[in-house]
Amino acid sequence: MVEALFFDVFGTLVDWRTSVAREAEKILGSRGASVGWLAFADAWRGQYQPGMEEVRSGRQPFSKLDVLHRRNLERILPQFGLTDLPEETLRELNLAWHRLDAWNDVAAGLARLKQKFQLAPVSNGNISLMVDLARRNNFPWDAILGAEIAGDYKPKPRVYLAACEAFDRAPDRCMMVAAHSKDLAAAASIGLRTAHVARPDEYGPNTGEGAPTIKVDYTAKSLLDLAEQLGA
Amino acid sequence: MVEALFFDVFGTLVDWRTSVAREAEKILGSRGASVGWLAFADAWRGQYQPGMEEVRSGRQPFSKLDVLHRRNLERILPQFGLTDLPEETLRELNLAWHRLDAWNDVAAGLARLKQKFQLAPVSNGNISLMVDLARRNNFPWDAILGAEIAGDYKPKPRVYLAACEAFDRAPDRCMMVAAHSKDLAAAASIGLRTAHVARPDEYGPNTGEGAPTIKVDYTAKSLLDLAEQLGA
Repeated sequence: MVEALFFDVFGTLVDWRTSVAREAEKILGSRGASVGWLAFADAWRGQYQPGMEEVRSGRQPFSKLDVLHRRNLERILPQFGLTDLPEETLRELNLAWHRLDAWNDVAAGLARLKQKFQLAPVSNGNISLMVDLARRNNFPWDAILGAEIAGDYKPKPRVYLAACEAFDRAPDRCMMVAAHSKDLAAAASIGLRTAHVARPDEYGPNTGEGAPTIKVDYTAKSLLDLAEQLGA
Repeated sequence: MVEALFFDVFGTLVDWRTSVAREAEKILGSRGASVGWLAFADAWRGQYQPGMEEVRSGRQPFSKLDVLHRRNLERILPQFGLTDLPEETLRELNLAWHRLDAWNDVAAGLARLKQKFQLAPVSNGNISLMVDLARRNNFPWDAILGAEIAGDYKPKPRVYLAACEAFDRAPDRCMMVAAHSKDLAAAASIGLRTAHVARPDEYGPNTGEGAPTIKVDYTAKSLLDLAEQLGA
């Protein structure tokens, strides 16, 4: 019997791509910059895995995702001809990741799931970022778990295990919910149950995972569909 | 300007004494045990500071409060003539601390404060215990901070600082809210603002702190009074 649901956030619950593009345009567009804002969001996100890999490999000590996002931002700005931005603009721009909008089904789906399960994000995003997304999108978390409390980044096993331990649950009483098979495979390898949610438009129309590439316990079209399947 | 409020929980938000007495009576009374249940709660709580001091001093590695509560329970049971209890009863009894009731003003006070501030418990209680208390009493936390994410126990400075860092706030943007002057003094010593809430009946009628014994930024009779004073 599953008692706790753990959620991936970027891509699974929130549409980071169009939200970051919108925020970047709002902040940089007024400075006269004109770039492809979706391409800008993609480039920034493109640095995401390499940045975390520095930590996962032990080459860099753990620092929270806001710090990695800032480092990654400074790496891509010159590619878009954006140089000499004031510190305040850089800081504001980095907070774009705190202002992401949820996919349509998420708030209603989580509200239903909360009646039956304990809920927490198990994201690579830091606590303050998760708090801002929760306030913005009405995510009714019981607690904020994930990379910052584990001191490492998914898909390292420690991150999933730290979440199970925080909730005092054996891994097989916990289910990871994500739109990414790699995340689910890592969770399953240490005993968690898994649910895949289709987000086919994550990187633009028909670019995301419409279906899992591995065997999972549940396959859902949305969080409402998942709630239905779980009897919540 | 204060942006985040951190709350002590045991005594400040919840009435641990009558709640633990009630739970102990419910679980042990049916086994024919007859002891003074408030005295039982007091004895259990009496082991609280010594148990944490083992960790704070470095003599014991950090373990979550549920583990310390269990160790403390086994220490006091013989004093009440309670021996040879089955493992399941001990486990159930230890969860008494997950079923504490809030003082009357708390849910309404937190709901008002949440409109204006980020809110988190900064308690020595572990995450799963805080989650259960929040569900039971409608505490609308933004995140669960405190001892478990810090790996040490209040009043060690690390616990307050870990909370400020998790919320990306300088200490002077954070306020510790507690019914215990010692907790507030420790928070103030590293730069947090402080609010004292009177809980005169914590250990029984007229036994708790009706007023702070140190200088604080706010002195309140309840969380509703505090909300009023903070314009929330």
